[in-house]
Amino acid sequence: MPSSTDPLSSIFAALADPTRRAILARLSEGGASVGELGRPFDMSAPAISKHLRVLADAGLIEREVSARWRICHLRAGALRDAHDWLDAYRRHWEGNLDRLVEFVERTHAADSAKGARGATKARGK
Amino acid sequence: MPSSTDPLSSIFAALADPTRRAILARLSEGGASVGELGRPFDMSAPAISKHLRVLADAGLIEREVSARWRICHLRAGALRDAHDWLDAYRRHWEGNLDRLVEFVERTHAADSAKGARGATKARGK
Repeated sequence: MPSSTDPLSSIFAALADPTRRAILARLSEGGASVGELGRPFDMSAPAISKHLRVLADAGLIEREVSARWRICHLRAGALRDAHDWLDAYRRHWEGNLDRLVEFVERTHAADSAKGARGATKARGK
Repeated sequence: MPSSTDPLSSIFAALADPTRRAILARLSEGGASVGELGRPFDMSAPAISKHLRVLADAGLIEREVSARWRICHLRAGALRDAHDWLDAYRRHWEGNLDRLVEFVERTHAADSAKGARGATKARGK
């Protein structure tokens, strides 16, 4: 990833991979060593390290290096930045849902009215 | 983008570019022609078309083709999918904020108590 990439583009690019999203899901339960993070994947250690580097460069994880361990932690701030960007579009899908609910209610009301008229007619026979 | 890419990865990859995010922002105000969408960018028509294809492949826009126009529209569902994925991590940044607020309140309470003790001492002199 070129260093000129803007932060939000780096975050979205880092999220555009199922292995990296699975690593974040694991880290959302708590810190984990690089070995632990690689275990569920049929992947070489360098491949996992590359994924971790992409996540770290995007600010989605931080790597704590001690004498014996390298522990990774989730960094929530970058996830919030992506979330906040998407949140600005919320009215679009909520608007769509509102229109759907309105349509279902209108259809249901029309059906009920028809049903009621039908019942009245049947009683009138 | 290989066709084997999972939907969420395609969505995040499509969002990982400032031009494509600017196109979505423009479309959030209403449908627009390809020419209109390209106008604010110092970019060739094929380059804009390529960005639109990436957005369409990810399900973020749809292209309405009439005899004379090709109008693009925002599709909110794909944005919601990305938003919902990120929403699962909300407790992490809200948790962090909660801890920050707690820290500030605790520090403030300690300072106030110190201040109150100081005032009592001063009055006692």
